[in-house]
Amino acid sequence: MRIGIDMMGGDFAPGSTIGGSLLARKTMPGDDEIILIGDKDLFAQYVEENNLDVKGISIVHASSFVGMEDHPLEAFKKKSKASMFLGQRMLAEGSLDGFCSAGNTGAMLVGAMQIITSIPGIIRPAIAAPFPMLEGARAIMLDVGLNPDARPDVLYQYGSIGTIYATLVNEIEDPKVALLNVGLEEGKGNLVTKSAYQLMKESSTYNFIGNFEANELFITNRADVIVTDGFVGNMMLKEAEAFYRLVTMKSVCNGYFEMFNFENFGGTPVLGIKAPLIIGHGISNEKAVKSMIEHTSHVVRVGLVNRIKEELER
Amino acid sequence: MRIGIDMMGGDFAPGSTIGGSLLARKTMPGDDEIILIGDKDLFAQYVEENNLDVKGISIVHASSFVGMEDHPLEAFKKKSKASMFLGQRMLAEGSLDGFCSAGNTGAMLVGAMQIITSIPGIIRPAIAAPFPMLEGARAIMLDVGLNPDARPDVLYQYGSIGTIYATLVNEIEDPKVALLNVGLEEGKGNLVTKSAYQLMKESSTYNFIGNFEANELFITNRADVIVTDGFVGNMMLKEAEAFYRLVTMKSVCNGYFEMFNFENFGGTPVLGIKAPLIIGHGISNEKAVKSMIEHTSHVVRVGLVNRIKEELER
Repeated sequence: MRIGIDMMGGDFAPGSTIGGSLLARKTMPGDDEIILIGDKDLFAQYVEENNLDVKGISIVHASSFVGMEDHPLEAFKKKSKASMFLGQRMLAEGSLDGFCSAGNTGAMLVGAMQIITSIPGIIRPAIAAPFPMLEGARAIMLDVGLNPDARPDVLYQYGSIGTIYATLVNEIEDPKVALLNVGLEEGKGNLVTKSAYQLMKESSTYNFIGNFEANELFITNRADVIVTDGFVGNMMLKEAEAFYRLVTMKSVCNGYFEMFNFENFGGTPVLGIKAPLIIGHGISNEKAVKSMIEHTSHVVRVGLVNRIKEELER
Repeated sequence: MRIGIDMMGGDFAPGSTIGGSLLARKTMPGDDEIILIGDKDLFAQYVEENNLDVKGISIVHASSFVGMEDHPLEAFKKKSKASMFLGQRMLAEGSLDGFCSAGNTGAMLVGAMQIITSIPGIIRPAIAAPFPMLEGARAIMLDVGLNPDARPDVLYQYGSIGTIYATLVNEIEDPKVALLNVGLEEGKGNLVTKSAYQLMKESSTYNFIGNFEANELFITNRADVIVTDGFVGNMMLKEAEAFYRLVTMKSVCNGYFEMFNFENFGGTPVLGIKAPLIIGHGISNEKAVKSMIEHTSHVVRVGLVNRIKEELER
């Protein structure tokens, strides 16, 4: 298995990406290759300065990179040789099995749609984020930001994609799929969720348990997959981030709240595109990059993309 | 000033409502009347059993009440003599200056629309909820649940109603109005927020500062009024409730998090209807009911409803 990582991506690159790769190297099977994509001179200089043993990781040179502040579409048009897009092309061409970056998220998504492209049958790809639930359980919510306007059929399909993700990646048997809504009863909601409910309740391919309210987050384990549109999902995720920062600011000493540290989760795959592409958080440190690489490897190992393709062929 | 309270409303009524009224009685000016609306025999029995001095509060008899589990529309059709609806009629007719209930929220809202009715010019009334912000500041978010589908012109108008609320009730001069969105830049968002942004930025009647992201909640004081539709707003509020419960469950001893206890805020007015109607939380205890009554009194005193009417006449 060949896992690529954007050496230039993230606020603390290349220290975080090189360091994270070396950490991941220690835990991953020996026949898994870790390939850094970025400036080879910068790599050599960093390795020398820090006197690192880089056995087991390799470098593919890219002559430019996408900055965190670059406009995603413009970067895509003007920086085709950037490490992020090179990695994506290598992934699309099959010379990588998975690719991850903690760089510019918008640019990663542009590349996801333009270079990796959607699986035929996927109406709209999505991004899933993990939400900590009761007693260490973890639900995923999708979409958390790719499509601010999702039609009912898109939400319906998120249930399907999410089920595959929860089954394969979170190893949950017959995951419970819920629709995020303003009330528990059928008939509650806005126009989109009302219609989506009708589609989802007829699903024969996943276990739809009905509506789920936001005040059940964190404190129940009633759902494994929580479906919503990218506008609401992004709000939910960001409010949780705010809460985590608040807890941190207020110096509440409780390890439990580390579960809210979304940086610990090591990135989130773009679901519904043709290859495993994992997006990390810009402020990833070494530990976060390590998690991101391991997560990429895990997503590749369980065959997530193929399983989604198969689901669409049913 | 005559403030009515639904004696039968809330999970702990009538103990919470009678007890809360007596607590409020001690802090409110002597010429403010507190009028309980509910079963007079139940009132007499509770007063006798608990040996209470009820000087300064009075009772108006209602022969039935809306239960917490009643279907709002059916209750409205079949229980016209219920305390909640009697109180709303008294409010509409002018024999009360303000009315509050911690009872069935859905039924309160049906009554708000059917008995109190909207102010002419208000496209859709809204419910505002307070959000604790940095350094003790408090922003309001609206709508948090009345309209799951809000058009851009409705969001635009929420900016106006919210400005009046923040000015009068929270005593903030020239409040900063923001649009809850998935990014800070103009052009971000779903179809509705993109259009709403265009309307709001042209506003000459309030101070629009642009988009606001959910990860700024609690930890900034960049906005005083946060505008969103009732679907998203309800999610935001309920996720915050979940946080509060989580913090409580995890026994994090930090008084700061009491700010997340939405029950402390003593109810929220329905904005845009013709009279001051305040909705409390079902699980209100004495202290919460006291806050609800005081809040109702405050809303009446500052002339919130008239100010919204005047705004629409400009």
